[in-house]
Amino acid sequence: MNSPTRTETDSFGPIDVPGDSYWGAQTERSIANFPFGDRERMPAEIVHALGYVKQAAARVNARIGGLDANIAEAIQQAAGEVARGDLDGQFPLVIWQTGSGTQSNMNANEVIAGRANEQLTGSRGGKDPVHPNDHVNKGQSSNDSFPTAMHISAGIAIYRRLLPALRRIHARLAEQSERWDSLVKIGRTHLQDATPLTLGQEFSGYAAMIEDNIVRVEAVLPRVMRLAQGGTAVGTGLNAPAGFADAFAKEVANLTQLPFTSAPNKFAELAAHDTMVELSGVLNTIAVSLSKIANDIRLLGSGPRCGLGELKLPENEPGSSIMPGKVNPTQCEMLTMVAAQVMGNHVAVTVGGLQGHMELNVFKPLIGANIIRSINLLSTGMMSFTERTLDGLEADEQRIADLMNRSLMLVTALAPEIGYDNAATIAKHAHKKGQTLKEAGLELGLVDEETFNRLVRPENMLGR
Amino acid sequence: MNSPTRTETDSFGPIDVPGDSYWGAQTERSIANFPFGDRERMPAEIVHALGYVKQAAARVNARIGGLDANIAEAIQQAAGEVARGDLDGQFPLVIWQTGSGTQSNMNANEVIAGRANEQLTGSRGGKDPVHPNDHVNKGQSSNDSFPTAMHISAGIAIYRRLLPALRRIHARLAEQSERWDSLVKIGRTHLQDATPLTLGQEFSGYAAMIEDNIVRVEAVLPRVMRLAQGGTAVGTGLNAPAGFADAFAKEVANLTQLPFTSAPNKFAELAAHDTMVELSGVLNTIAVSLSKIANDIRLLGSGPRCGLGELKLPENEPGSSIMPGKVNPTQCEMLTMVAAQVMGNHVAVTVGGLQGHMELNVFKPLIGANIIRSINLLSTGMMSFTERTLDGLEADEQRIADLMNRSLMLVTALAPEIGYDNAATIAKHAHKKGQTLKEAGLELGLVDEETFNRLVRPENMLGR
Amino acid sequence: MNSPTRTETDSFGPIDVPGDSYWGAQTERSIANFPFGDRERMPAEIVHALGYVKQAAARVNARIGGLDANIAEAIQQAAGEVARGDLDGQFPLVIWQTGSGTQSNMNANEVIAGRANEQLTGSRGGKDPVHPNDHVNKGQSSNDSFPTAMHISAGIAIYRRLLPALRRIHARLAEQSERWDSLVKIGRTHLQDATPLTLGQEFSGYAAMIEDNIVRVEAVLPRVMRLAQGGTAVGTGLNAPAGFADAFAKEVANLTQLPFTSAPNKFAELAAHDTMVELSGVLNTIAVSLSKIANDIRLLGSGPRCGLGELKLPENEPGSSIMPGKVNPTQCEMLTMVAAQVMGNHVAVTVGGLQGHMELNVFKPLIGANIIRSINLLSTGMMSFTERTLDGLEADEQRIADLMNRSLMLVTALAPEIGYDNAATIAKHAHKKGQTLKEAGLELGLVDEETFNRLVRPENMLGR
Amino acid sequence: MNSPTRTETDSFGPIDVPGDSYWGAQTERSIANFPFGDRERMPAEIVHALGYVKQAAARVNARIGGLDANIAEAIQQAAGEVARGDLDGQFPLVIWQTGSGTQSNMNANEVIAGRANEQLTGSRGGKDPVHPNDHVNKGQSSNDSFPTAMHISAGIAIYRRLLPALRRIHARLAEQSERWDSLVKIGRTHLQDATPLTLGQEFSGYAAMIEDNIVRVEAVLPRVMRLAQGGTAVGTGLNAPAGFADAFAKEVANLTQLPFTSAPNKFAELAAHDTMVELSGVLNTIAVSLSKIANDIRLLGSGPRCGLGELKLPENEPGSSIMPGKVNPTQCEMLTMVAAQVMGNHVAVTVGGLQGHMELNVFKPLIGANIIRSINLLSTGMMSFTERTLDGLEADEQRIADLMNRSLMLVTALAPEIGYDNAATIAKHAHKKGQTLKEAGLELGLVDEETFNRLVRPENMLGR
Repeated sequence: MNSPTRTETDSFGPIDVPGDSYWGAQTERSIANFPFGDRERMPAEIVHALGYVKQAAARVNARIGGLDANIAEAIQQAAGEVARGDLDGQFPLVIWQTGSGTQSNMNANEVIAGRANEQLTGSRGGKDPVHPNDHVNKGQSSNDSFPTAMHISAGIAIYRRLLPALRRIHARLAEQSERWDSLVKIGRTHLQDATPLTLGQEFSGYAAMIEDNIVRVEAVLPRVMRLAQGGTAVGTGLNAPAGFADAFAKEVANLTQLPFTSAPNKFAELAAHDTMVELSGVLNTIAVSLSKIANDIRLLGSGPRCGLGELKLPENEPGSSIMPGKVNPTQCEMLTMVAAQVMGNHVAVTVGGLQGHMELNVFKPLIGANIIRSINLLSTGMMSFTERTLDGLEADEQRIADLMNRSLMLVTALAPEIGYDNAATIAKHAHKKGQTLKEAGLELGLVDEETFNRLVRPENMLGR
Repeated sequence: MNSPTRTETDSFGPIDVPGDSYWGAQTERSIANFPFGDRERMPAEIVHALGYVKQAAARVNARIGGLDANIAEAIQQAAGEVARGDLDGQFPLVIWQTGSGTQSNMNANEVIAGRANEQLTGSRGGKDPVHPNDHVNKGQSSNDSFPTAMHISAGIAIYRRLLPALRRIHARLAEQSERWDSLVKIGRTHLQDATPLTLGQEFSGYAAMIEDNIVRVEAVLPRVMRLAQGGTAVGTGLNAPAGFADAFAKEVANLTQLPFTSAPNKFAELAAHDTMVELSGVLNTIAVSLSKIANDIRLLGSGPRCGLGELKLPENEPGSSIMPGKVNPTQCEMLTMVAAQVMGNHVAVTVGGLQGHMELNVFKPLIGANIIRSINLLSTGMMSFTERTLDGLEADEQRIADLMNRSLMLVTALAPEIGYDNAATIAKHAHKKGQTLKEAGLELGLVDEETFNRLVRPENMLGR
Repeated sequence: MNSPTRTETDSFGPIDVPGDSYWGAQTERSIANFPFGDRERMPAEIVHALGYVKQAAARVNARIGGLDANIAEAIQQAAGEVARGDLDGQFPLVIWQTGSGTQSNMNANEVIAGRANEQLTGSRGGKDPVHPNDHVNKGQSSNDSFPTAMHISAGIAIYRRLLPALRRIHARLAEQSERWDSLVKIGRTHLQDATPLTLGQEFSGYAAMIEDNIVRVEAVLPRVMRLAQGGTAVGTGLNAPAGFADAFAKEVANLTQLPFTSAPNKFAELAAHDTMVELSGVLNTIAVSLSKIANDIRLLGSGPRCGLGELKLPENEPGSSIMPGKVNPTQCEMLTMVAAQVMGNHVAVTVGGLQGHMELNVFKPLIGANIIRSINLLSTGMMSFTERTLDGLEADEQRIADLMNRSLMLVTALAPEIGYDNAATIAKHAHKKGQTLKEAGLELGLVDEETFNRLVRPENMLGR
Repeated sequence: MNSPTRTETDSFGPIDVPGDSYWGAQTERSIANFPFGDRERMPAEIVHALGYVKQAAARVNARIGGLDANIAEAIQQAAGEVARGDLDGQFPLVIWQTGSGTQSNMNANEVIAGRANEQLTGSRGGKDPVHPNDHVNKGQSSNDSFPTAMHISAGIAIYRRLLPALRRIHARLAEQSERWDSLVKIGRTHLQDATPLTLGQEFSGYAAMIEDNIVRVEAVLPRVMRLAQGGTAVGTGLNAPAGFADAFAKEVANLTQLPFTSAPNKFAELAAHDTMVELSGVLNTIAVSLSKIANDIRLLGSGPRCGLGELKLPENEPGSSIMPGKVNPTQCEMLTMVAAQVMGNHVAVTVGGLQGHMELNVFKPLIGANIIRSINLLSTGMMSFTERTLDGLEADEQRIADLMNRSLMLVTALAPEIGYDNAATIAKHAHKKGQTLKEAGLELGLVDEETFNRLVRPENMLGR
């Protein structure tokens, strides 16, 4: 590409940038200094959140920070474009940069200044009349802006993606729990035959697990919604006007229509990211829940002829490039892989979270990017799994009945009357001889037929 | 040891057990089947919790389960001894057994029956008149008893150890935050000199981090306090009388004086341990917080002559076997090691939590043991660190003042008046020439003396 | 206990120690400073390795370090007792102490001096004629002695426990691979029915996995066998005589009869523990292998009547406290729990390994203790699983044949002649109609009987 | 986009695909079934490796598989384009799909068939004359092709990126180790002042750590270079001609000029990914090493006026958006963040690796994608860190000398002559009184001046 360039400058001196870019010298330096390529770009969600940061800051600066109204208006307009995603192509920087996210913050400052200057002067880029640091970044530091963007992007992703996906999967599981409420089936503990329950009861457990996860997410939200903005460089708020932090949080809440607040202690918000570690722990818990549910459904759907075969999963695509006619539980596989990634991301967040030094944790982009990726993976994964596996899931009632009636563990119902030891003798005898429980019990003389018939009734073993 | 033995039996047949033991056949088999040795014993806290389980169950069974009053009373007495820790030596089993904890549950059943029989008949052990399964385990399964013990032991450990330790360290940090509220020092971001703050502000961040952790623990508590008991084998409650679950939880709450409740969905409690994974995630967050705090204090206390030297740590022991007179931040080292273990345990809990199958997660002893160990390590670690490092921590005010006055980052206060770019030029010039900021600013003509003196005052850079 | 005490001193002053202990002032201080209790004791294996360190050092010091021969001999004798485990009760210190292991090193120095003094003077403890630092620790620092003990203990555990256990399980799996070499069964991919293989082929995969793990362990051994001793305080070897390091390694090799060597770069051995992280990664790989094998066997053995039921696992104990006659795959559960712990320990080791500062990594006890625990858990776990599950494992040939003959995936053998798309049509038709493949193929006219009979023969689908 | 479409079919029926695409029905279905978006695309390296797979298979099939020569040639040509990266835009599928990678394998089959058909007939796409399954996938299954692509891509990335980056950083560190071989500085253990060493010795440790990592990578390579191809669906090699596996591996070795071989046991290669877990453990070790090195350099470079200041790091960009003139160790921050991600990815790989079922591990895309990402992150990270921090690193000799001469730990050199306890007394006295060691020693009368001057010479404390 030999597109024309223009020259931008920073405290390191002049540097050429692509003529069609809005960014300036610091962005350009970062492209060269961290050559990880497009696949490692800072997530767009964090870029959009920086747009909200700059938009809200401009409004507050105009009101209480002495920022010229015209400049503030131009910044606001440009920042709004960033927040809406209209300028995503202007954010080429990668996750792996300075650990404070300074370069992404400067990327936002430069692009917004460059775009605002274009609006005001017709000439793209530069620092005049709108200066990236003195105006766009006014009253801010990367050290508070970037963690603010981390929390804004996480908060938005939770409200708009994660909670809806959790509620969607929960609704389906709850519906299935009712639908199959009286479909009695064999229970399995230790992967071995156990006493019966209904398929609806089994799914009520899954629904309850998801319900708890919704509660967990809601419990961490108050801390996620707290914004660091106003702390500036080290948490003291140097160079930010009095009242900046609260006014800023109100603007962001207004712009996003989400309940963001100003963090009560800014030192902690810059120096550590415990809330992101906590949130990641909740995402890890969701991943564990989903693994269990997807694994169960895949196992109950194993077959078609040589597995358990209690559930019939929807067929979404051909399953094998070599075995014709094969259909596989691909959504379960997707979801368990996604879960494994979230567990891995959680360790990355943890390792980043533990290594802060004094006034600043410098693993911010790592932490922010993993949080966003984990939320997105879980949200899309749950939605896809619900739509493409749960929604079309069917019970094979015949197969379920066949298996249940074979089970030796119905013997458990005898124990309260004939004692644990006698009941065990019957079960072992039946197993060894290939008999039914009743045959074994009568042959051994440990139970009479009336008692057996009265007690060994799966439909009475459901705890109701 | 050739102490006399006696013969006990289970459904596998007779087996010799040590004559002075209260346990029976199943415990004895487990000793042989899982030869991991004493270092891998099931944590005593879980054993004690099984004591509470059996004690509460006996009370409920006497009332609504048709258990003979004398037998119930004998069980209760013996179970109380287990709960109090009087019979710890009778619990030789290890963590690495069946994944439902069945063998530890049977160990409790056998010991309590054996002890109750001794009380009633003078003869230790056996199954008569008190039977381990039919009486002690009445209305229960390992599948609900063991997770109930996991939650009881975790709940007790949180209330009695973790929260007190968190509150203790928080109180000290909060006190230090006030004590050093006007001691101005250099801030450090990226481990590089930054704008000033007070030592009290720095410690206010630590206090705020711990305060959040208390909130996190309290947020997970309602789920930790839920008990699975009443679900029996697969969650349906087969063989437990109606009302057992609620009555049981009330008894445990009464015995422990802690707000235990009956879990709303028993299927989920047996089949998964999401709440333990969640709790472990909170412990992981605490570990991350503590690592950061301990690392900062160790770094601020580095020296005595070649480090930062802003803090003076109490000397608790000689530091080196070869370097005479050396004193080391050993409590910081202990705490960061403990934190690393908790992070590792968290992965173990996660890996266990994700692998449940159908009606039962069979990683229960792994999960329970890691939770207890993590709580204990953090609690003792925090208490020791607070008593032996924080309580005696002193600020080296002279050193703090010396360092702060050298810093170039005080230049930040000039930026709002002379602009970011001019301020940067001054700082870089001073750095290159080894000058003070004022010398550089005046030499470059970028600021006048009055302005410099008015703006560059650390005590005005604290955001108050 | 009010046993008589005696007074010991260190550079912090005098302190009372139990009269029957051999240890001195620094050990006593550490007991008080790190109150984690007996369950958190430093592993005995590391204590024994410190015995070897002191024994070998005394020999070298007598020869080239100017240590008086009588003193050297007394140290050697006492150190030998430590190495043999005769003095384990004299090592009360816990893992969670100073991160260099200084206090455990001093515990060894003090106990050995105290014991040697008793031998020489009749009076237990003290520093005369044998001084813990000047004589027992001569030419050493905790900073090289403790990592040396970590490597010695790891090396011994690998040679004496891990490799034998790997070889034992490998031998059994290899034998089973041959035994069941022509027992054709259904294959399963995605947990769905697939083309056939023999049970022997399936087990050949397990055997190959273990074989690779043996190679992995052998590959890391050269680095594990390298000893840091001779680096003293910071790696330079200050205060150690020329030639100390090599002579020491030879002595240890001689004492243990294992190929220990002197590490080529002592700075790296003190400052980092990459080899322990690497070794932990290998243990993590073994844990992953074992999880897969144990999971497969548990799944193939699921039933007895409602699962896959291809394998019959030995019955080792009653399986349930509520379900009479139940038998569970408890050794599989033990092994997968052990594996999860090893994965967690690996993260603890990693987190410890990454946080070294300059000349010393101060997570040594954490790292050493986790390595030893992981090796022990895997070794005992594999031995127990082999003896109690693999050795008695049987194939249910009837069940295996029944399942295989039902499978639709035998259609794959038709694809090369009739094409993938036609073969897929046959399989889907048979599935929908509940037909056999042949019925479906003939009904659809996509294959003739001769072709079908010629191609669809499981015994020809084994790739031989 | 309303570009024209064409209709493709698979065993699920017809479906419209974009007219300008080469892909077919199964790719199109996968786009719809796994809506994760472009950011989650399967890594290009794995796509390229699938190109090699298809190219090599076509060559072998032409020779021994009965594939028509013209078809084989057309496949080869098209597959070569895939391998070279010319058709990356034709691979829209994401990581989160079926766990066998079947859909990416079919994407390759379809694109290559579609491209070959275009070459042969002028008409893009379709199955005639070249069929995606019958011809491009001939003798293969996703179950062997995808893991083969995982190993090929990993092998290439190791040879072309990881090892060169390791060698580059090693060379610089080794050079620095020599350059600074006699620059004496204070050592630090426990972050506290310790005995001296040279800066070159310090860097020799770093170089040794990297050297070991090269050995580790080389040790795992023989297993990485083993290819699963030839196992087909379950490892038996059904539908692959005799000799396919070995001939295939030779072709891949020839195409890539790298020593790929055929795996000795195909069952293990499909059913498990232990070697990827092992490799990930080695990458985790490298990450740990790099964290330590980057952390040390950042700490030694802390300042400029309030830190340790022994090293001067190159200035690559402005450091702060609010603090003018600030320069930060951004390459250290990048590298430690990258390392944290690799540690997280390692857990994801581990969790995926442990969950295989019977003949197939279905976490392949997760595992493959994390391995490639970790290698790329480490390789780029190391190269960038070397070029932008190590290459320009300078020692501040004046500062180093100042610090060293203040240290109290030079007292260690006195211990062998005056004893540990006396030396400790001197150091503590000097510390308390703010004296030099000599002043304290003489004042206390514990050493005479001649002895002091003879022994306390840093240049003699370097162990040479």
